[in-house]
Amino acid sequence: MKLTPDQLAQFERDGYLFFPALFSPEEVKRLTDEVPRLYAMERPENVREKGSRSVRTNFAAHLYSKPFATLARHPRMIEPVRQVLGEDQLYMHQFKINGKAAFDGDVWQWHQDYGTWLADDLMPAPQAMNVAIFLDEVSEFNGPLMFIPGSHRLGALPAGHDLTTTSYPLWTIDNQAIATLVEKAGGRRGGIVAPKGPAGSMIMFHSCLVHASSSNLSPWHRVAVYLSLCAVGNHIRRFKRVEYIAHRDFTPIECLPDDCLLRDYPVELPWANGLPASALETSLEEIEAAA
Amino acid sequence: MKLTPDQLAQFERDGYLFFPALFSPEEVKRLTDEVPRLYAMERPENVREKGSRSVRTNFAAHLYSKPFATLARHPRMIEPVRQVLGEDQLYMHQFKINGKAAFDGDVWQWHQDYGTWLADDLMPAPQAMNVAIFLDEVSEFNGPLMFIPGSHRLGALPAGHDLTTTSYPLWTIDNQAIATLVEKAGGRRGGIVAPKGPAGSMIMFHSCLVHASSSNLSPWHRVAVYLSLCAVGNHIRRFKRVEYIAHRDFTPIECLPDDCLLRDYPVELPWANGLPASALETSLEEIEAAA
Repeated sequence: MKLTPDQLAQFERDGYLFFPALFSPEEVKRLTDEVPRLYAMERPENVREKGSRSVRTNFAAHLYSKPFATLARHPRMIEPVRQVLGEDQLYMHQFKINGKAAFDGDVWQWHQDYGTWLADDLMPAPQAMNVAIFLDEVSEFNGPLMFIPGSHRLGALPAGHDLTTTSYPLWTIDNQAIATLVEKAGGRRGGIVAPKGPAGSMIMFHSCLVHASSSNLSPWHRVAVYLSLCAVGNHIRRFKRVEYIAHRDFTPIECLPDDCLLRDYPVELPWANGLPASALETSLEEIEAAA
Repeated sequence: MKLTPDQLAQFERDGYLFFPALFSPEEVKRLTDEVPRLYAMERPENVREKGSRSVRTNFAAHLYSKPFATLARHPRMIEPVRQVLGEDQLYMHQFKINGKAAFDGDVWQWHQDYGTWLADDLMPAPQAMNVAIFLDEVSEFNGPLMFIPGSHRLGALPAGHDLTTTSYPLWTIDNQAIATLVEKAGGRRGGIVAPKGPAGSMIMFHSCLVHASSSNLSPWHRVAVYLSLCAVGNHIRRFKRVEYIAHRDFTPIECLPDDCLLRDYPVELPWANGLPASALETSLEEIEAAA
């Protein structure tokens, strides 16, 4: 899978690329079949919605679930990211499976991911990429991801730390700034976009692209995997957050073959028996760049 | 304005009719120009969102605002309701201007309006109609009203009284029942619909039609007037709720001419100087049917 010059220009301009049905129903099934088991686990990696048992987000499944460890090494996901970032060596900075459960799925307020990675993790530059892979069909009714096209070109924007709106703390952008960005992006005609499509679709989006998602009142779950890949040389410089949220293993990802979700290839599952105690240790000290 | 047999059959089947751009931009402007003044009032009729000053809903403006008193008597709104209900004598049971403010607008959970009118107000039958008039453009991004087509045919459904999710108490329908209704209505292919259109559009929907709306994270307000018209003979039998929420004046509405929003016709504004003390008096006693 090689992106065309048109696709590269589109990413430059809009800050995202959408690939409908990139993974087949059979490949998606290997992943969705695993989700109930993961969400039922009593592990700190499961963050639940305010006032409900529904999982808002599950962290780091690529370290304790074989199908998701496989996805984390999938060439159809890794190669376009390498191409756009112009970096061969990527590591997994964050890996989550967001539930956005039927009826219970709460909002994610407007934010940039890189804002958090800079403020909390001291990631030097936005040499990192977000990837969203739909495990359910996404429609207008189940809280699709919304983007402000082109907003990535402004770099890291001022943000405030919201600790109360939802069950997960987030560096969010204020309303006046969002209104201005949407207006500049086309207002009611294109100032907000929400890619929709079948399960197996993938979105690749810039780590500075401003995004949000609404609540899900529909009877349809909207489970999606969000992977954040960072250039190895751009690894984080502080372990202020626990390791299952901001990873500390900067080893470059090695891809598996394209049929990896359908055939059996060995992968390591270092946290299969629970996360190590060291993963919960945090520090405000700045670390040296790795050699 | 006379509904066609096709429109009547469609209402029977789906439980709603949508009239895009029924009111002109000039007519809508008379209404929208008045909203900031109403929302700024410190009156009990303004219910604000949880944790914000944004108005969630303003009640009974037809009793203290000239443009909205005029709208409450508009033939383009009243006449189709008379035709569908087969009743000439209608009174205003409830009148509200829902804010669904940009960024702050919270969800309305799945519910039927008649469920509340029966449980709280002892309205004998669903001989009543809801009308929504958009004062802002409604898109997929600012929390459109969602319907489950055909759900009105089941009559009043069991409901639970939700006092905590939002700032306004509501008799809501449980998730399993909603999932079943959506499946019967077509599931992912038509089981939920969300009419969208310019300001001035109108939706007429059955008082038993199950509906909800999502949060509004967009920078666009989604102000809409919701009128509930009840057949005079079907008036409520209990004043358990304050009068600005469930009206006690069963006088039949008399229409104004079709140009009433553009020309100056006299209307009474009995609550112009504040609501009467009696409007706050409530009782659990059942009253007699009016003669």
